[in-house]
Amino acid sequence: MTDITGQSLIAGEWITPAGKEYTSINPYTKEVFNAFKSCGVEEIEKAVSAAAYAYQQMRKMDGETIGTFLEAVADEIEALGDILLETGDTETGLGLARMTGERGRTTGQIRAFAAIAKKGEWVEAAIDTAIPDRAPLPKPDLRRMMTGIGPVAVFGASNFPFAFGVLGGDTASALAAGNPVIVKGHSAHPATSELFAKAIDAAIQKTGFPKGAFSLLQGANRELGTELVKHPVIQAVGFTGSEGGGRALMDIAAARPQPIPVYAEMGSINPVFLGPNTIKSTGDGIAAGLAGSVCMGTGQFCTSPGLAIMLEDANFEAKMVEALDAAPRGYLLNPRIQGSLQDAFKRFESIEGCEWLNKADFEEGSMTPPNAVFKTTGDVFLKEPELAEEAFGPVNLMVVCKDEVQMLEVGNSLKGQLTGSIHADEDPELAKAVLAILEQKVGRIIFNGYPTGVEVCPSQQHGGPYPSSSVSWATSVGADAIRRFARFVSYQATPDAFLPSALKNDNPLNIFRKVNGEMSQAKIG
Amino acid sequence: MTDITGQSLIAGEWITPAGKEYTSINPYTKEVFNAFKSCGVEEIEKAVSAAAYAYQQMRKMDGETIGTFLEAVADEIEALGDILLETGDTETGLGLARMTGERGRTTGQIRAFAAIAKKGEWVEAAIDTAIPDRAPLPKPDLRRMMTGIGPVAVFGASNFPFAFGVLGGDTASALAAGNPVIVKGHSAHPATSELFAKAIDAAIQKTGFPKGAFSLLQGANRELGTELVKHPVIQAVGFTGSEGGGRALMDIAAARPQPIPVYAEMGSINPVFLGPNTIKSTGDGIAAGLAGSVCMGTGQFCTSPGLAIMLEDANFEAKMVEALDAAPRGYLLNPRIQGSLQDAFKRFESIEGCEWLNKADFEEGSMTPPNAVFKTTGDVFLKEPELAEEAFGPVNLMVVCKDEVQMLEVGNSLKGQLTGSIHADEDPELAKAVLAILEQKVGRIIFNGYPTGVEVCPSQQHGGPYPSSSVSWATSVGADAIRRFARFVSYQATPDAFLPSALKNDNPLNIFRKVNGEMSQAKIG
Repeated sequence: MTDITGQSLIAGEWITPAGKEYTSINPYTKEVFNAFKSCGVEEIEKAVSAAAYAYQQMRKMDGETIGTFLEAVADEIEALGDILLETGDTETGLGLARMTGERGRTTGQIRAFAAIAKKGEWVEAAIDTAIPDRAPLPKPDLRRMMTGIGPVAVFGASNFPFAFGVLGGDTASALAAGNPVIVKGHSAHPATSELFAKAIDAAIQKTGFPKGAFSLLQGANRELGTELVKHPVIQAVGFTGSEGGGRALMDIAAARPQPIPVYAEMGSINPVFLGPNTIKSTGDGIAAGLAGSVCMGTGQFCTSPGLAIMLEDANFEAKMVEALDAAPRGYLLNPRIQGSLQDAFKRFESIEGCEWLNKADFEEGSMTPPNAVFKTTGDVFLKEPELAEEAFGPVNLMVVCKDEVQMLEVGNSLKGQLTGSIHADEDPELAKAVLAILEQKVGRIIFNGYPTGVEVCPSQQHGGPYPSSSVSWATSVGADAIRRFARFVSYQATPDAFLPSALKNDNPLNIFRKVNGEMSQAKIG
Repeated sequence: MTDITGQSLIAGEWITPAGKEYTSINPYTKEVFNAFKSCGVEEIEKAVSAAAYAYQQMRKMDGETIGTFLEAVADEIEALGDILLETGDTETGLGLARMTGERGRTTGQIRAFAAIAKKGEWVEAAIDTAIPDRAPLPKPDLRRMMTGIGPVAVFGASNFPFAFGVLGGDTASALAAGNPVIVKGHSAHPATSELFAKAIDAAIQKTGFPKGAFSLLQGANRELGTELVKHPVIQAVGFTGSEGGGRALMDIAAARPQPIPVYAEMGSINPVFLGPNTIKSTGDGIAAGLAGSVCMGTGQFCTSPGLAIMLEDANFEAKMVEALDAAPRGYLLNPRIQGSLQDAFKRFESIEGCEWLNKADFEEGSMTPPNAVFKTTGDVFLKEPELAEEAFGPVNLMVVCKDEVQMLEVGNSLKGQLTGSIHADEDPELAKAVLAILEQKVGRIIFNGYPTGVEVCPSQQHGGPYPSSSVSWATSVGADAIRRFARFVSYQATPDAFLPSALKNDNPLNIFRKVNGEMSQAKIG
C-alpha cells in the first residue's frame, strides 16, 4: 500500500510546503482522512521555472516521444492498483464502481491523446507552395501548423477526481500539445491527487521525460491559484468547477499585463423540454429516465438536468416523485458542496410559488441529501432569477408553464448551458421552436435522452456559451480539447532542414495536410 | 459622382446622428474634407436590435444565400467606381495605385468568403454514428458543426481603409459565418466608410438580405465604441489598430457580465535578424530590400520591420542610410498618426546611446516624415524598454549587438510579434537559434524576406502572441479568419429532419465530414 505523505511534487522533487495545514474529509464518516500543507509563491516559482525550462525541451520533441510518455502515465495509473480507487472513494464518497469506471475513462483519455500526439495530424498542417513567376508579385512558399502555447496551469474538479483531476483531460491534452503542466491540486481530494502525481512521477523517471513537465502544487489557499495564474510564464489555464471560481480566474487572467486564455468549464442547469403530447403518451418512461439522470452521481455532474420545462401534467409529476423517492440517497462529495446544496434548498423553499413536491428530511450538515423535485410556474420562474441558479446535487425544478409560448419564453430567458434536451416526438412544432433556442444557448442538444453521460468522440462538444464555459468554441472532452493549448505559426520560405517534421517536403509523419487548398498525404516537390 | 452625406446607416436606414461633429482631413493639403456627426447610445440600440432580429433569419440561411449576398457586396464595391479610390486617397494619402490594389484585395477577400460560405465545409462537420448494442452503455448518434456566434462589432484600421475597413476581412468573415455586423466607422476616413456602407446597402436591397445584417455607426467619440462592446447583444469583436485601443476593448469585453472574445490585431515591431557573415557577403541587397520594406506605405503597416538585430557592420549601415535617403518621402495617414510618429522620433532621440543615423528635417506637424534609421547597442536596447515600442511610420532601429549571444538575448527580450525575419544563410547556427526564439514569439517566420506583404492563403497566420494579437491562435487574414466568429454545437440522437444540412444523412452539401474519425464525403446509413 502506498503511504500518503502530504507532500507536493515540484519537477520531480517531493517537498513539504510550509503553508497552511488542511485536511480532506471522508464524506461517509465525516472523519479527517489526511493532512496536507499548502504551497505558496515560493513553490510556484520553483515549479514555473522548471516548466519554462522543460518547455524548451518539449517543444522540440516529436509526437512519438510525447505519446510514449503519455502511455507510460496511463500504465502507471493502472499500476497504482486498488489504493487509487479506495482513496478516491474515501475522499469523494462516489463509490468504488464509479471510481473504477472513471479510472478507465481517465486512462482511456490519456491513451487517446497519446495516439493523437503520435499521429501528429492534430497540428492542422497547411502548405501553399511558391509561385516564383506570379505577377505582379511572386508568391512565397508558406506553411502553417499548430504548436504548443507554453506552460499551462490546470485546476481540476471535485466531482470528477480522476477524469477532470490531476491527470484528467486538461492535463492530458495540454501535455499532448507539448506543454508542461502545473496542477493546483483540489483541496477536497489531496490524497487522490498525490497518488496521480506519484504515477506521473514514475512515468517521468521511466521514460526520462523532462522533470519540469509536471508539478502538483497542493493547497487550500486561494492565493495559490491566484498567484499561479498571474505568473508571467503561465500561458493558458484549464479549469473545471463553479461559475464563481472560473470567473475569478478569468478576471485575473484578463487583467495580466499579458492576458492569457482561461478555458473554464463551469456550471450549467441543463434544461429538459417536455412536449405536452409526448409526456401524455410516454411520460412514465421519461419520468423514470429523467429521475435516474437527476440522481446519477448524487446529482453532482455539470450535465445534471436541473430544469424540466413543461405544461401541467399530474401524472408525470407523480411519476417523478415516485421515481425520485424510490432512488436511494447518495453521498455528497464534501462539506463545501453540502453547504452549497443546503443553501440551494433553502433558497428554493424561500421563494413564493416554488414548492418542494417530495419534501423530506435534509438535516443540517447531512451528507446524504434527498432526491428532490421542486415545482414552480413559468410566471414565477421568469421573475425569480435565483431559480435559474445551479443547485449542485440531486435536484430538479419543474417549471410548469401556462402554454407552449411560455415554455419558449422560459427557454429564451436562460443563460448559456452545456446541454439542452428535448422530448417532443409528438409535439413536432414545439420541438422545432425549442431547437432554434437551444442552438443559440447550449453546446450539446439531446433528443429523447438525458444530459448525463458525455460520450468521448470527435463530435462531442462539452462546452457552451457563457457561463457554462468561458470560451464557447472550446470543448474539454474529445480530441479537439488539444486545440485549446496550441496556436498557429507560419513559416515563409523556410529551408526544409529548418521546418518541423509536419511541414517538411517529404511528409515524414505521413499525415494529411492541406496542400494548396486540398487535403493530401503527398510529398512536396 | 456620389455625394457624401455624413450620415450613418442603421439597418437599411440612413440617419443623421445628433452627436459631436468631426471632420476628416486631407493629408496632402491638411484641409478639412468632410463633416460628420457621431452616433451614440440611441443609434447603438437601434442597430443592435435590428442585428438581433437579423441574426434569427441569418442563422437559418444556407451558405448559398450568404455567399450570393457577399458576391453582390463585392460587385457593388466595384460599381462605386473611381470615387471610392479618390475618396480613399483623399482621406489617407495612400495614393491611387495603392487604393486600386487594396480594392482588389478587398473584393477578392469578400469573394473568397463567399466561396467558403457556399461550399459549407468550413463548419468542420463531424459525425459519430450510434452503436445501440455497445456494452455497458449504448453509444448515441452524435454530430457536431460550427455555427455563427451572433452579432459582431467590427472596428477597422486607419492604415487599410478598404481591406481592414468597413467591408474588410473582419466584416466579410463574420458575415460568412452567418453573423450580423455592426461597424464602428474609423474617424479618420468617414467618407470612405460611407461609400462602403452605400455598397453593402445596395447589395442588401438587390438580394433582399435582412437589413439588420449590417449597420455603420460613424463617430469620433470613444463612448460609441465602449458602449457598443458593452451591449449584451454583441457576441464578439473584431479590431485592427493600436495596442492601446485593442487592450481597452479587451478590458471592456472581459468585464462584461457575459465576457465576449475580442479578436484584436494590434501593433508589432517585426524584428529582422541579420547574420554577420550573411550581411558581409550579401548585405547590399538585404539593405535595399529592408529599406524598401521600411518605406512601404510610409511605414504604416502592422508588419513594417521596425527592428534590425545585427552585429556592427559599417557597410550595411551605409547602404541602409543610402537606400532610405534615396527613397521618396511618403504621406502619413492623418494628424493623429503624425503626432504619434513625431513623439516616437523624440523618444528615440532622447535616449542616450540611440543615434539617428540619417538625421533630416521633420518639421512639427509635417505629414511627410523622413525615412529614418536609428542605431543603438544591444546593451542600451536591453535596458530601455521604450526602444521596443512601435514607431508607426518609416523607421527602423538597428540594434547592434556585441556578439551573437546578445542578438539572442535581444530576441528573447521581445514581446509577442506578428512576424520575425531571418537573413542568415551563411550563419546556420545563428539561424537555428533565432528560429527557436521566433517560434515562441511570432505568428509568421520569414526566411530571406521582409515582413510587409501578407499573402492571402490557408497557411497564412496574421496574428501572434500578445500584444501583437489578443488571441494568439487566431488569424485575421485567410480562410481561417471565419473560425473566430463561430462556435461548435453537437446534436445527439437528433432526427434527420431537424439537422442542419451539413449534418444530414445524405450529405446534401457534398462536403467532407469526419465520419467515425475519418474524412469522408459519404452518406450516412
